[in-house]
Amino acid sequence: MKWNNFDTMQAYKELQAAAKVCVKKALSEAGAAKRIQSFTVPFAGFEYNYAAKQVDADILALLQKLADEQDVIGKFTALLNGEAVNTGENRKVLHHLARGQLGSDVLFNGKNMRSFYLGELEKMRRFADDVQSGKILSSTGKAFTDVVQIGIGGSDLGPRAMYLALEGWAKKHGKRTLKAHFISNVDPDDAAVVLSELNLETTLCILVSKSGTTLETLTNELFVKKFLQDAGLKPEKHMAVVTSETSPLANNPDYLASFYIDDFIGGRYSSTSACGGLILSLALGFKTFEAFLAGAAAADKAATEKDITKNAALLDALIGVYERNVLGYETTAVLPYSQALARFPAHLQQLDMESNGKSVNRFGEPVAYKTGPIIFGEPGTNGQHSFYQHLHQGKTIVPLQFIAFENNQTGKDIEVDGSSSQKKLLANVVAQIIAFACGKEDSNPNKVFEGERPSSLLYAKELTPEILGALLAHFENKVMFQGFIWNINSFDQEGVQLGKVLAKKVLANDMPESLKAYSDLLHIL
Amino acid sequence: MKWNNFDTMQAYKELQAAAKVCVKKALSEAGAAKRIQSFTVPFAGFEYNYAAKQVDADILALLQKLADEQDVIGKFTALLNGEAVNTGENRKVLHHLARGQLGSDVLFNGKNMRSFYLGELEKMRRFADDVQSGKILSSTGKAFTDVVQIGIGGSDLGPRAMYLALEGWAKKHGKRTLKAHFISNVDPDDAAVVLSELNLETTLCILVSKSGTTLETLTNELFVKKFLQDAGLKPEKHMAVVTSETSPLANNPDYLASFYIDDFIGGRYSSTSACGGLILSLALGFKTFEAFLAGAAAADKAATEKDITKNAALLDALIGVYERNVLGYETTAVLPYSQALARFPAHLQQLDMESNGKSVNRFGEPVAYKTGPIIFGEPGTNGQHSFYQHLHQGKTIVPLQFIAFENNQTGKDIEVDGSSSQKKLLANVVAQIIAFACGKEDSNPNKVFEGERPSSLLYAKELTPEILGALLAHFENKVMFQGFIWNINSFDQEGVQLGKVLAKKVLANDMPESLKAYSDLLHIL
Repeated sequence: MKWNNFDTMQAYKELQAAAKVCVKKALSEAGAAKRIQSFTVPFAGFEYNYAAKQVDADILALLQKLADEQDVIGKFTALLNGEAVNTGENRKVLHHLARGQLGSDVLFNGKNMRSFYLGELEKMRRFADDVQSGKILSSTGKAFTDVVQIGIGGSDLGPRAMYLALEGWAKKHGKRTLKAHFISNVDPDDAAVVLSELNLETTLCILVSKSGTTLETLTNELFVKKFLQDAGLKPEKHMAVVTSETSPLANNPDYLASFYIDDFIGGRYSSTSACGGLILSLALGFKTFEAFLAGAAAADKAATEKDITKNAALLDALIGVYERNVLGYETTAVLPYSQALARFPAHLQQLDMESNGKSVNRFGEPVAYKTGPIIFGEPGTNGQHSFYQHLHQGKTIVPLQFIAFENNQTGKDIEVDGSSSQKKLLANVVAQIIAFACGKEDSNPNKVFEGERPSSLLYAKELTPEILGALLAHFENKVMFQGFIWNINSFDQEGVQLGKVLAKKVLANDMPESLKAYSDLLHIL
Repeated sequence: MKWNNFDTMQAYKELQAAAKVCVKKALSEAGAAKRIQSFTVPFAGFEYNYAAKQVDADILALLQKLADEQDVIGKFTALLNGEAVNTGENRKVLHHLARGQLGSDVLFNGKNMRSFYLGELEKMRRFADDVQSGKILSSTGKAFTDVVQIGIGGSDLGPRAMYLALEGWAKKHGKRTLKAHFISNVDPDDAAVVLSELNLETTLCILVSKSGTTLETLTNELFVKKFLQDAGLKPEKHMAVVTSETSPLANNPDYLASFYIDDFIGGRYSSTSACGGLILSLALGFKTFEAFLAGAAAADKAATEKDITKNAALLDALIGVYERNVLGYETTAVLPYSQALARFPAHLQQLDMESNGKSVNRFGEPVAYKTGPIIFGEPGTNGQHSFYQHLHQGKTIVPLQFIAFENNQTGKDIEVDGSSSQKKLLANVVAQIIAFACGKEDSNPNKVFEGERPSSLLYAKELTPEILGALLAHFENKVMFQGFIWNINSFDQEGVQLGKVLAKKVLANDMPESLKAYSDLLHIL
């Protein structure tokens, strides 16, 4: 496998010369409908439509050339076959394997990793069934009604976003068996406020820490155990754990059950492992989680296609690189027109920014080009009444990622002024795409919209578990492909270490002048 | 009053010549403590510390010159005296007056506006008292237990963020009388999921729409009324309204009570009006809302100071302009180390981006310089396990706004490894400030932190209602000052109109080719 810097690619140089702004024209003129119909890639129940992106046949040809030159699919294949593409940490990258097998058997220390993941899945199925059937009861013999995940970062953002995304769907289908809650922050008010709303007697907790050493999570575990004890309950009957087999938390009889993950699945890629699987299985049923995995596996398969006009994740990745490095856009907004995806942008913020917010290539050499963008977003139509003013008329162009579904989840709706709320929601999606792309002239300059603000649209029939899995995998694969193109390691996160080290120095009162001065201001010691 | 473009300022030219990167040096060397102690501005219970910003005595002198040259305080004074500084819409700007009077009497059509706001406050006090005392009961004679705000944009983000910010505090002090919920999105799943968790018999709803014509809010009102009717309840006994006196919703006997606002308080500035006041009074007690107003009024008063080293909001605004226009930073991250402020960044995102995301000056002429930044953020320490990787080692410098409090809100905490969770939280704040500013050298380039990433810190003793009011007003005033400096109108939002117009065309099936093609893709019609 050849790993080369992005700025050594011939296609990059050609893209710089070919860059164009063409959306306003393409979508304003006759023939727009044809472009909209044809600039679309189906995958795993979705369509990825890029008609409102600043690309045409010439740019697409160069993006294909870039993908081929950087051998992006070859690298993905190597990853699927178990090569240690997390170079800095010398680790395999196996989150795809947790939901399906697209490459050859992956062995580690003689262990078949696919079998290992399937084994953990089976343990989750049995545990969830036993809790839901009442075979496993609380320490006072009551059926569990609530489940609390204690974790942070990847052990929190992904699982939380996925739960919220499916809660309405599961309720409609009578599948929400436990209500889920999340405690993440070391701020003691986080746990205190969450626990104050719960009946602890019927609450099951899941501790999630791969390393078993995460400061916030271990502190919150003790905090929660104290609440359980103070309520006269036995913590060991109220707490399960998800960790790695080598962690200090493994094989501990103080937990009701233990589920294992490994160093080959990074926190931000762990929603399809036990980190997300246990709470989703407990709260929404194992079959729901299984369907979610199947959707992710289908999107993974679609991402192995070499032709970029048939590979949505790869095309999305390439257009993102073109926008970041050739057109010079620094940020990307994620705009799901679905309230169920309220926390999905926060998950993508971690996924993308932690993976590709890097300044060195995979060999540790500084790179001269920009890497991952800044990601933010809120659901529509809410965002329209908030930051869209800036997106439409501000001085900075922000590429947009719309997400929409033909039907809503709960099946409840109301007809007002001749249209349902769901139709109104969708009418706003398409209106915004065109408003951003085409703009509007006006004799009052305050009412002028320049347009030429690019967006793409991911849409599907309904946000089901399968569709959510495909959506998640789409973005995981997009981020991975961008990392390959930029020649960076999307699977480590050295940038989070320094703060941890300095915080320990503060707590040990062993610190230089500047830290001491700030600590004095806040009366820390 | 003279309104001049930012790029005509002499101080702007001088700032461009004087720009410097100095934080790493200033905070790494001996003497750092003195800078940290002295680069701080007290106001209304807060300290605004800017020791980790890229400024020194020379830059501060030029920022003062800029403030004077643009007569920023003179413009604020004119606003306080009732001048129509919302030029485009020819409206006064009176959110400050809703919480105190710092200028002369403000009259409109013979009405003293301060008396009007005080009158509405008194109505809120009485209504909240009557609901809390059980004098006003549900249509089945039950005491209300829950309150649901139906609103979007400024009628949602601010009130929601403020409620979450004070819920833990209010519970500790026995002041949370009703639990609050929010419905905003036209996505029918939003209302359906919120309502499915409530006992409608004891739920009071507040409809909030200044114009009385907001599509999302009116649709959701009918949706909620249908749920109430289906539950055998009388909607008119379960719904109050906040609107303007000229709105179609005013003086309507179908509401239990009506509270009035006006066109002089923009949605994103309306948390201290009845838009935020009614739900905060009902859920957390009128005295809590009154204390919140007092804190905002104290911060407003502090913002009238001409000396920028004594005016935190003005200094924060000026440093932001320096970062945006001279140093070239496009985004700003808001990082509250308090879980209670979980949605505060989303509120600031609207406040800042809707106010200053403009490309024309207040006379409608295009400006050649950058205006408001892109705002995003999540609470710490959660963000540390998410996007901080990018902030530390990414290719884009993002100025940071830390917010922290010496004590937590709930008073609950746990000592682990010799420190409380609150101490750990604060240790992380100061560790991050220094890590971002000073960076770290390392023989492994993957572990190098370049540093020189600027931040400021807002800190106070505890997040009480007064302190929250001061925090909110600080940012409102910062945004207003930046608008004055950029010579833009921070109080209109023409950029939200085009999307609304096009959405209506879609729903009326009266649309051009491109909209039609997208509508076909999503099977809208």
